[in-house]
Amino acid sequence: MRLAIIGAGAIGRIHAHNVTAHPEARLAVVCDSIPDAAESLATEFGSIAVQSVEEALGRNLDGAIIASSTASHGEVAAACIVAGVPFLCEKPLASDRSAALQIVASARQAGLVAAIAFNRRFDAGYAGIKAAVSAGEIGRVEAVLVTSRTASPPSVEFTRTSGGLFGEKGAHFYDLARWITGEHPVEVFAMGSVLVNSSFADIGEIDTAMVTMRMPSGALCQFDFSWRSAYGQDERVEVNGSLGMLQTFQEPVGRFLRSKSGGQSQDGLMPTWHERFAPTYADELHAFVGAIRSGDSSGLPSLEDGLAAQQIADAARESVQFARPVRLNGPLD
Amino acid sequence: MRLAIIGAGAIGRIHAHNVTAHPEARLAVVCDSIPDAAESLATEFGSIAVQSVEEALGRNLDGAIIASSTASHGEVAAACIVAGVPFLCEKPLASDRSAALQIVASARQAGLVAAIAFNRRFDAGYAGIKAAVSAGEIGRVEAVLVTSRTASPPSVEFTRTSGGLFGEKGAHFYDLARWITGEHPVEVFAMGSVLVNSSFADIGEIDTAMVTMRMPSGALCQFDFSWRSAYGQDERVEVNGSLGMLQTFQEPVGRFLRSKSGGQSQDGLMPTWHERFAPTYADELHAFVGAIRSGDSSGLPSLEDGLAAQQIADAARESVQFARPVRLNGPLD
Amino acid sequence: MRLAIIGAGAIGRIHAHNVTAHPEARLAVVCDSIPDAAESLATEFGSIAVQSVEEALGRNLDGAIIASSTASHGEVAAACIVAGVPFLCEKPLASDRSAALQIVASARQAGLVAAIAFNRRFDAGYAGIKAAVSAGEIGRVEAVLVTSRTASPPSVEFTRTSGGLFGEKGAHFYDLARWITGEHPVEVFAMGSVLVNSSFADIGEIDTAMVTMRMPSGALCQFDFSWRSAYGQDERVEVNGSLGMLQTFQEPVGRFLRSKSGGQSQDGLMPTWHERFAPTYADELHAFVGAIRSGDSSGLPSLEDGLAAQQIADAARESVQFARPVRLNGPLD
Amino acid sequence: MRLAIIGAGAIGRIHAHNVTAHPEARLAVVCDSIPDAAESLATEFGSIAVQSVEEALGRNLDGAIIASSTASHGEVAAACIVAGVPFLCEKPLASDRSAALQIVASARQAGLVAAIAFNRRFDAGYAGIKAAVSAGEIGRVEAVLVTSRTASPPSVEFTRTSGGLFGEKGAHFYDLARWITGEHPVEVFAMGSVLVNSSFADIGEIDTAMVTMRMPSGALCQFDFSWRSAYGQDERVEVNGSLGMLQTFQEPVGRFLRSKSGGQSQDGLMPTWHERFAPTYADELHAFVGAIRSGDSSGLPSLEDGLAAQQIADAARESVQFARPVRLNGPLD
Repeated sequence: MRLAIIGAGAIGRIHAHNVTAHPEARLAVVCDSIPDAAESLATEFGSIAVQSVEEALGRNLDGAIIASSTASHGEVAAACIVAGVPFLCEKPLASDRSAALQIVASARQAGLVAAIAFNRRFDAGYAGIKAAVSAGEIGRVEAVLVTSRTASPPSVEFTRTSGGLFGEKGAHFYDLARWITGEHPVEVFAMGSVLVNSSFADIGEIDTAMVTMRMPSGALCQFDFSWRSAYGQDERVEVNGSLGMLQTFQEPVGRFLRSKSGGQSQDGLMPTWHERFAPTYADELHAFVGAIRSGDSSGLPSLEDGLAAQQIADAARESVQFARPVRLNGPLD
Repeated sequence: MRLAIIGAGAIGRIHAHNVTAHPEARLAVVCDSIPDAAESLATEFGSIAVQSVEEALGRNLDGAIIASSTASHGEVAAACIVAGVPFLCEKPLASDRSAALQIVASARQAGLVAAIAFNRRFDAGYAGIKAAVSAGEIGRVEAVLVTSRTASPPSVEFTRTSGGLFGEKGAHFYDLARWITGEHPVEVFAMGSVLVNSSFADIGEIDTAMVTMRMPSGALCQFDFSWRSAYGQDERVEVNGSLGMLQTFQEPVGRFLRSKSGGQSQDGLMPTWHERFAPTYADELHAFVGAIRSGDSSGLPSLEDGLAAQQIADAARESVQFARPVRLNGPLD
Repeated sequence: MRLAIIGAGAIGRIHAHNVTAHPEARLAVVCDSIPDAAESLATEFGSIAVQSVEEALGRNLDGAIIASSTASHGEVAAACIVAGVPFLCEKPLASDRSAALQIVASARQAGLVAAIAFNRRFDAGYAGIKAAVSAGEIGRVEAVLVTSRTASPPSVEFTRTSGGLFGEKGAHFYDLARWITGEHPVEVFAMGSVLVNSSFADIGEIDTAMVTMRMPSGALCQFDFSWRSAYGQDERVEVNGSLGMLQTFQEPVGRFLRSKSGGQSQDGLMPTWHERFAPTYADELHAFVGAIRSGDSSGLPSLEDGLAAQQIADAARESVQFARPVRLNGPLD
Repeated sequence: MRLAIIGAGAIGRIHAHNVTAHPEARLAVVCDSIPDAAESLATEFGSIAVQSVEEALGRNLDGAIIASSTASHGEVAAACIVAGVPFLCEKPLASDRSAALQIVASARQAGLVAAIAFNRRFDAGYAGIKAAVSAGEIGRVEAVLVTSRTASPPSVEFTRTSGGLFGEKGAHFYDLARWITGEHPVEVFAMGSVLVNSSFADIGEIDTAMVTMRMPSGALCQFDFSWRSAYGQDERVEVNGSLGMLQTFQEPVGRFLRSKSGGQSQDGLMPTWHERFAPTYADELHAFVGAIRSGDSSGLPSLEDGLAAQQIADAARESVQFARPVRLNGPLD
């Protein structure tokens, strides 16, 4: 199966590694508008480098992974649809909502395998909770709690064009909450602060936030987001239901416990999400390869899921701006 | 030290036990307007039963513990002040805010040892976190997260006159957040649902809620409250700061682990808050006895702390009613 | 129920506290040959002090707790039998085996409630494992593992007349292994070292040891004993069976977790067995009171259990001395 | 780097996978006397199959991994030495001790990189403990405790020619104890039982055992071995020292906790050592590749380490046979 990587940055590199290691896949081409970037990644993984998306899509591909700059996702996705190339797109699908809706409609019409790269769904803990909830283990879901703290904030420069705390970080977790509950929220409220890097205030961004949302069933969701964690990448999901509660563990890297006169200790959390979630990228790729093979993309987050998460991110931003809860009418509204 | 218990209900009984066991204290009198209740508790602990608060306060007391019905707290507290009897009052001080403010002012003027029974402050985990934060272990506080789920809801009848989920339950945790951060919130938002017992809807109450609040420093607090926990009394506090994070454990009763072909398991959480927080009542009493002896009540939650928590409960209720965040100007405003 | 404490040392004091707090019991008399010791303890708990055992036993007792010096246990127990006073005796029953056998026979003939104070049986974790094994939860027992490390060694002086590491410490754990498996070992092997305090070598004692024993069923037991633990009182029991495994936890005093850049930590184990096993003494007393009331002592470790544990301690000592395994023919052989 | 796999069984397959995935290595040839076995593995990993060791060693190799049947290790190792091919040999080096000593001497004389595949040394937990002990974190080592339970016993057939519980399983852990303490035992005692499969008795083998050994420093080691674990592969190492204690965790596969009315549970241990220790084989290969490159094999267990572990296994076997402790004079004695 011939796959292209569009975008030779950090995420593109993770995908390139996984494509190369996958028994059914081959890295047919690496595309980046910066020649050196494309060349360097292609060379590292024994592939070919091109600069234009058109050229990449013309190389008899079975699929493409879109990991280019945030602003370019929509354009590349649209090109894939025209070329009939299945794609897995890093979030968000498109910054502009009407453009995004247009892409979703086109992809659906074309019957193309197309997915958003919400890699967290492939984490063993999150997937285990989803499966247990679906199996009815905890009855009716009443509360979902998510903590996500990143060791250090992205640069102000990057944040200016990415989705910020509510989009860049938050989208993964709105998606988890929707996926686990099978519901889309009807109300979103957020409070935010600038506590980590005061420069975020200059661009109208926050670095610490609490988001609350209500599902149609009455289930409530809470999100605790921060661009700071002094102790490594900390992500946890907890779901309380009428019959029980499920919660992921923190995952310390320590493999042994020290007991000394001062107390007990172990090595702590992984420094970044790269190490913590590396395995999810391989499993996500595996699901994409399977979807291409079978034509059935139900095992992957859909483009609609991507839009839905983006809608929640927008609502959270609006909630902070106007200091009031925001009502939603549906994911594609 | 001669102490009176005013109110011979479940909480009064806990206090009676602890007073009897305390080396410096003696249960001088038990007071309840229901003669059988007073008689029964007095007999159990070898004390004397009276029906009227006046009679109780006339018995040469060193202190009184107010554990009578919620609606009567204010009246009893006022009587203690007039009689010059130091008191420890179960929350809330008074349902009516102006009455409560009046009591606070009188107690202060009288220079009387007077405290609110926020027993959670005496939990080893919560107190440990407070001490660590105060010692600067985690730098500047950025987020406080609280989960509090009770195994089964109070009756609709009780809830009608108690503070409900936001007051009866919530007040303890607003107080913890204020105590740990040393700040009073400037903004409160809450979402609530009726998921546990639909009869709560009939009296305008909710049984599941998420509360968010902002502190003057920008620190954010989240509270996850439920009158349902299928798995026992679950309370946890977590504080994230610029230099680290502190979190209490769940406290399972299991004292051994089972490893079997189906997985690993242990006995779970305590069924109710009675068992879980029994030790805090004894430590709270000890602090009250110490405050009476020394005249210094700084180791106890003040009446002002009680009012502050009540103000937040009111704000949460208002936030749900009007579906918007509520701003606060100060604890006694 | 009128109880006497014979021996006003540290253990006698624990018992005095529990007798005083027990609703059915009263501390009738405290006996110690050292007048000041008896007087001091009696005064502290509002009781009467005597010097001679005879005088104590003459005070219309319902029971006696023998917590006098190790060497005197047998004589006091014999006096209790003659006086017809039920007793709970700290281990060992008697240093001299034939004397001990004689006491066991007399007590049995008298039909007296008489028990050895193996308080560990009343620990929630150990008792939970015993119950689970008895209920068949892990099938047939194949291995029992015990770790017991004490923060600091007893004095050489005390060790000279107590049972040393194999007796003073070990007896509790041989008893647990016998109780949990329902078997008495047929073979015992021990290796010992002097690593903590070289003075132990001077009196022919060791401070670090590993004991292995075989049960008639083929189940094997391992004991890891040390008079040193740099990190507090560490005791753990683990039982592996054909259908599963049970293990007690360490029980750190930490009630919250710290996550910082250097890792995760919590406060560690209790400093001594006093704090760690305080609750077992109260439960043990409660069982003794119940046995006196009902005349049924089956809920307590019997004098025979005491002899059995002592026999194993002797075998371990012999094994070290002659550097070979020692065979046993039965607990009373 | 051209590597050969000698022996196309289960372990050979693990090595073949890792060699193929290693950036510096290439699977030059697969050798097995059973043509189908060699062919099948070679085909799977795109290599060449041969039947004779001579033919394999003639293919311009940089190194060989000896994973053939236990009885053949010595012969293959000797052939490698003659051919000047560095090798990594699965334990044991040779069943016959004098043959093994001869091989060790020849390899040393040849200055050849030659190592025994004690993969456990590459486990993050065990290696972490070794590093902490070496760094002096817990002072002087006083006790080493090892538990190793395998979910199901090897076949009686396999056990007849392998090292049995004391050799096949035990050797890994004697090696860990030697590696961590830097000492070789002077005394070994073992007790064994047949509890899992009565057929082991027919061939003079046991399936459950406790081994104790004494180090020259007086440090004591305990090993709890079983061919049965109802709950998956359970291996743990614990080291107590004068300044603290280190212990590896069990490593459950569960990535989330369930809290329900019946208690708390999670998915348990990995079913076999294959899954549990898969990562160690890759790290071991990496160390072997590094040793070939540098000519420095100090990061790998030496042939002498292999002999030393074998000597302890022999002593344990002798101890069971003659029911007495066995003294050792040195690893190569």
